[in-house]
Amino acid sequence: MGEEVRVTASHNPNTVNDDEKLEFDIYPLNCYYFGSKDPIPFKDPTLSHRLLSYAARGMRTCVQAVLLVELFKHPHLLLLQVRNSIYSLPGGRLRPGESDTDGLKRKLARKLSVEEDGDGLEWEVGECLGMWWRPDFETLLYPFLPPNVKQPKECTKVFLVKLPASRKFIVPKNMRLLAVPLCQVHENHKTYGQIISGVPQLLSKFSFNMIES
Amino acid sequence: MGEEVRVTASHNPNTVNDDEKLEFDIYPLNCYYFGSKDPIPFKDPTLSHRLLSYAARGMRTCVQAVLLVELFKHPHLLLLQVRNSIYSLPGGRLRPGESDTDGLKRKLARKLSVEEDGDGLEWEVGECLGMWWRPDFETLLYPFLPPNVKQPKECTKVFLVKLPASRKFIVPKNMRLLAVPLCQVHENHKTYGQIISGVPQLLSKFSFNMIES
Repeated sequence: MGEEVRVTASHNPNTVNDDEKLEFDIYPLNCYYFGSKDPIPFKDPTLSHRLLSYAARGMRTCVQAVLLVELFKHPHLLLLQVRNSIYSLPGGRLRPGESDTDGLKRKLARKLSVEEDGDGLEWEVGECLGMWWRPDFETLLYPFLPPNVKQPKECTKVFLVKLPASRKFIVPKNMRLLAVPLCQVHENHKTYGQIISGVPQLLSKFSFNMIES
Repeated sequence: MGEEVRVTASHNPNTVNDDEKLEFDIYPLNCYYFGSKDPIPFKDPTLSHRLLSYAARGMRTCVQAVLLVELFKHPHLLLLQVRNSIYSLPGGRLRPGESDTDGLKRKLARKLSVEEDGDGLEWEVGECLGMWWRPDFETLLYPFLPPNVKQPKECTKVFLVKLPASRKFIVPKNMRLLAVPLCQVHENHKTYGQIISGVPQLLSKFSFNMIES
């Protein structure tokens, strides 16, 4: 009773391209080099900070990256940890007029590359996996714009960023970069928050080719 | 302080096609006609049923459809309700060797069209939004294959099915077709189960054009 556990390609010719994109390679953690650099200011958007920021600049739009590595034959998500208890996907706030892709590349360079302006190796920003809205300053995040909310205060878009077979991650000293198994973050709102704990579901349509090192 | 609440297109030319697909039309509930037909057997896969079925046929692969309509300017998900308390996305189990798309079209015709072999109006099966695995007979569903699980017992794939501007839904008399707001199903595991309650997150990357009737 063998069974096929891979995503099988659909037979509909119209969706061949989609199906091809549903499979991608992930590489072992030990393919990557991890180093550190000087600390960068950590902005924890507290309520008062968010109120002031909205008054000055309007809705906050953030972009975040899902970066995966293989460890113990299971996909692991790369998370930044600050002050021992705050976990986030690498990313940050867009500048006015900046595209999602440009903003995410800039933020990834700032938080994960040796030089702010990148180290020559581009980040491959892929498809948007999901979006989260904050309808008001103190409310939870929602994966849709709730009815009757005309002026949401925050929008966070999560993108898949495919890693090459090797690269350097240079992380500010006030942050730690962790590889956390998908099975640990799944529905673990309490520790990781809504966005991270929902990532396994957003990735569920993909089949991962775990490449041997 | 007006703000842009739509998904803005990325400026990366490589992803233009992806971005175009992130927007689609949904039509008001009153664009559709709802009728009924003779009951069809309802298979509630109990534990003993699942054990016998696995012994005979191996892993159960199911396909389900996300169908959306507009009501009160908010997207609503079409759900089948059986026995007042069981909710499911329209769909069902694949036959051996059947493709996801063919199987889902067959199941949609059986549960939502006037004739088992369809009514001439094809169902537009779109992209796979997510997948859920049942590692063992009694376990929860997971949006990934947990480490060390070699023989999962069940796999359910959820597809986006875009509705045309009008069509007939003819539902077996032992089932009810309901339009439930996304904001009601979101994270409501207890009432709707894991798959349905996660649908709003899987849809979060899309922007809906709500067409006026």
